Amino acid sequence: MPRKTCLTPKETTTQNRDNALLFESSEDSTMETRMCEMVFPNQTNHYGTLFGGHALELMDKSAFITASRFTRKAMVTASSEKVDFKTPVKTGHLVELVGRIEKVGRTSVTVSVDMVGENLLTGDRQLCARGKFVLVAVDPDNRPITL
Amino acid sequence: MPRKTCLTPKETTTQNRDNALLFESSEDSTMETRMCEMVFPNQTNHYGTLFGGHALELMDKSAFITASRFTRKAMVTASSEKVDFKTPVKTGHLVELVGRIEKVGRTSVTVSVDMVGENLLTGDRQLCARGKFVLVAVDPDNRPITL
Amino acid sequence: MPRKTCLTPKETTTQNRDNALLFESSEDSTMETRMCEMVFPNQTNHYGTLFGGHALELMDKSAFITASRFTRKAMVTASSEKVDFKTPVKTGHLVELVGRIEKVGRTSVTVSVDMVGENLLTGDRQLCARGKFVLVAVDPDNRPITL
Amino acid sequence: MPRKTCLTPKETTTQNRDNALLFESSEDSTMETRMCEMVFPNQTNHYGTLFGGHALELMDKSAFITASRFTRKAMVTASSEKVDFKTPVKTGHLVELVGRIEKVGRTSVTVSVDMVGENLLTGDRQLCARGKFVLVAVDPDNRPITL
Amino acid sequence: MPRKTCLTPKETTTQNRDNALLFESSEDSTMETRMCEMVFPNQTNHYGTLFGGHALELMDKSAFITASRFTRKAMVTASSEKVDFKTPVKTGHLVELVGRIEKVGRTSVTVSVDMVGENLLTGDRQLCARGKFVLVAVDPDNRPITL
Amino acid sequence: MPRKTCLTPKETTTQNRDNALLFESSEDSTMETRMCEMVFPNQTNHYGTLFGGHALELMDKSAFITASRFTRKAMVTASSEKVDFKTPVKTGHLVELVGRIEKVGRTSVTVSVDMVGENLLTGDRQLCARGKFVLVAVDPDNRPITL
Repeated sequence: MPRKTCLTPKETTTQNRDNALLFESSEDSTMETRMCEMVFPNQTNHYGTLFGGHALELMDKSAFITASRFTRKAMVTASSEKVDFKTPVKTGHLVELVGRIEKVGRTSVTVSVDMVGENLLTGDRQLCARGKFVLVAVDPDNRPITL
Repeated sequence: MPRKTCLTPKETTTQNRDNALLFESSEDSTMETRMCEMVFPNQTNHYGTLFGGHALELMDKSAFITASRFTRKAMVTASSEKVDFKTPVKTGHLVELVGRIEKVGRTSVTVSVDMVGENLLTGDRQLCARGKFVLVAVDPDNRPITL
Repeated sequence: MPRKTCLTPKETTTQNRDNALLFESSEDSTMETRMCEMVFPNQTNHYGTLFGGHALELMDKSAFITASRFTRKAMVTASSEKVDFKTPVKTGHLVELVGRIEKVGRTSVTVSVDMVGENLLTGDRQLCARGKFVLVAVDPDNRPITL
Repeated sequence: MPRKTCLTPKETTTQNRDNALLFESSEDSTMETRMCEMVFPNQTNHYGTLFGGHALELMDKSAFITASRFTRKAMVTASSEKVDFKTPVKTGHLVELVGRIEKVGRTSVTVSVDMVGENLLTGDRQLCARGKFVLVAVDPDNRPITL
Repeated sequence: MPRKTCLTPKETTTQNRDNALLFESSEDSTMETRMCEMVFPNQTNHYGTLFGGHALELMDKSAFITASRFTRKAMVTASSEKVDFKTPVKTGHLVELVGRIEKVGRTSVTVSVDMVGENLLTGDRQLCARGKFVLVAVDPDNRPITL
Repeated sequence: MPRKTCLTPKETTTQNRDNALLFESSEDSTMETRMCEMVFPNQTNHYGTLFGGHALELMDKSAFITASRFTRKAMVTASSEKVDFKTPVKTGHLVELVGRIEKVGRTSVTVSVDMVGENLLTGDRQLCARGKFVLVAVDPDNRPITL
């Protein structure tokens, strides 16, 4: 079962910890990127839940970072596939965005993004939205280039 | 061919103009809503073009307003369909978002959104993105209600 | 009476619709520009109504877009005339900003802006503020140029 | 006569300094309020100068704080008088907003606001805009109350 | 050496993946929280590097999430210890914030936060800032409570 | 001794007032800079109090402006010393930030910043946070230069 092993800072010297931080974005981890974001009142509608549009913005940002880290090229979003909003996220909750490389093409990558909401006081987590984004590598004139 | 007839302020008294403004959101116009937005540097990536995620946020906002005006119910986004980004929008350009009611279900409406970019200095306009959003009418507990 | 005729998407092919979108910003419509904006909690004071300052910002943006579309020149605001705030706009309401070319000078245009609030659930609309803005065409060194 | 006496930290103990800070907002100084703000890229247009609309927002905020401190009542903006933009403010410059009580009515106060731009590297200062704002004291239902 | 093992989506069914996502925030991982953020022009000064103040805001957010996930109580920042800015972060780079529980007291926790900058095009990573934040568990009246 | 002499608008003609505004940022007043900021819902957590991280951002901005005005050089934050949060600031309150030059080194200055909260309706003021920031003068390549 997939697991995220924790850093155990007490066993490592400060020097090692720095090295770990700096070299960590290696080989494997470039397949997946995680980011957390708090849901604040200015991102919610008048029902106190995260706006669909703001969720889409966070998911695209997650896809962009995941694709950029994998390809180390300048990437732009070419399309978003169907995104289903399953459970609304409430003000004061945390959202975690998990982007994963799903497919690698000649000039593009497909990234799946899961948005998980977490009630900070109880720890309850729910899958709130899931979608796929296609990002294309571009040159400075915005023309596709091979990966 | 579809046309948007302009207000002709010189022919109308101030009083008429006020009435026009207030009663204008009538029957027909509720099928379509237009909004303009400037693209500023804080919405663009380091290549100077509008972020895909910010474009999705604007498109969802357009869909939300269009759906709310049509149903006069509290609406939340249930899903976004495939959104294709055709042409990037540049810093300093205008985007116009045109939301249209495409389908009306028992508890939901489908809204198509076109995002058109406009170079303010030349007037050139290009279709930049097109997508569909499904919005559901909900009660205060976020449960679907009939339209 | 001034009227905004709606697009009727079912009668038009997709191709026609694209053309309509792209060529629509023609002759007449450049006299008036409309933009919608949702009023969210981060734009309201602690009484739940839109801040005067944020309203002025939206009205100036409307004037800027209207003037730029009419002149197709780089425009900057030279002054705002008296702006009266008639009715406060509440969180969750929509504001529609209607900018109209009122006067055309040698280097400047005067744009009137009406800000109309709309309760999305009832459709009630009220004139919330009205003002005039003078915008000047400038060269890259910010010196006035003839229109 | 309105006066704002300066803290003289070297002559005061920490305790005195705290008291000075806390009791400073007394009688006289409530006639004038100053606030500084940096001009960052996200507040400037594509010519690198502060947007007229953002300047108006800052000026209204200055008027709101000045009026609230003078009256100690809940205040809302009733109108802005003519605002002239004399010199554009550039990205990276500082703006200082100086709000002053100009007139006190039965339910309203008039506040003049000067916006001064300052080049942080040279110290050059220029008057960038000047305007007046009328603010009204209101009860929770937004009805005017006597000061 | 500390390692972050990656999810390997191809080996797991969709169902397992959902479970993994939802139950992942378990025992160990609550000791450390990671969040990524892009550095955009509106967060940088006129030299194109992330503002110290914005860096501090991101670091405090990281400390808040780390402390909240560990204690599952309402937390507020009581103090920040010395924060050293070692290397500036540039526009277009990624920052990763790594918060770790360092010490647990009766009513407070101490969280260390490392801010690592990553050049998305080269993958180069540098430690940009390091600091410690003390957060206290509070009741709704903002009084400290035992953990 | 640092002193900030107040404008006394009633005794001065408009011309004098302009001169006063423009030449005020002289010699002495550069030892201290004050800025006010309203606390709005989008800067507060779900308990209605200003986020520690947003407070740190405001304090750094105050230190940056104070240091820049004193040195008239391009300054960047090198470190923040311990910052204690004494009293939370509530939504709708005003914060005043008072930055003071405390120490001048060869390439750096140390600025103390006090953050004072003010209840606009009662005038009550409380010291909310106090800290010190070290800022370094840099050349365009971000290398320290002598003051």
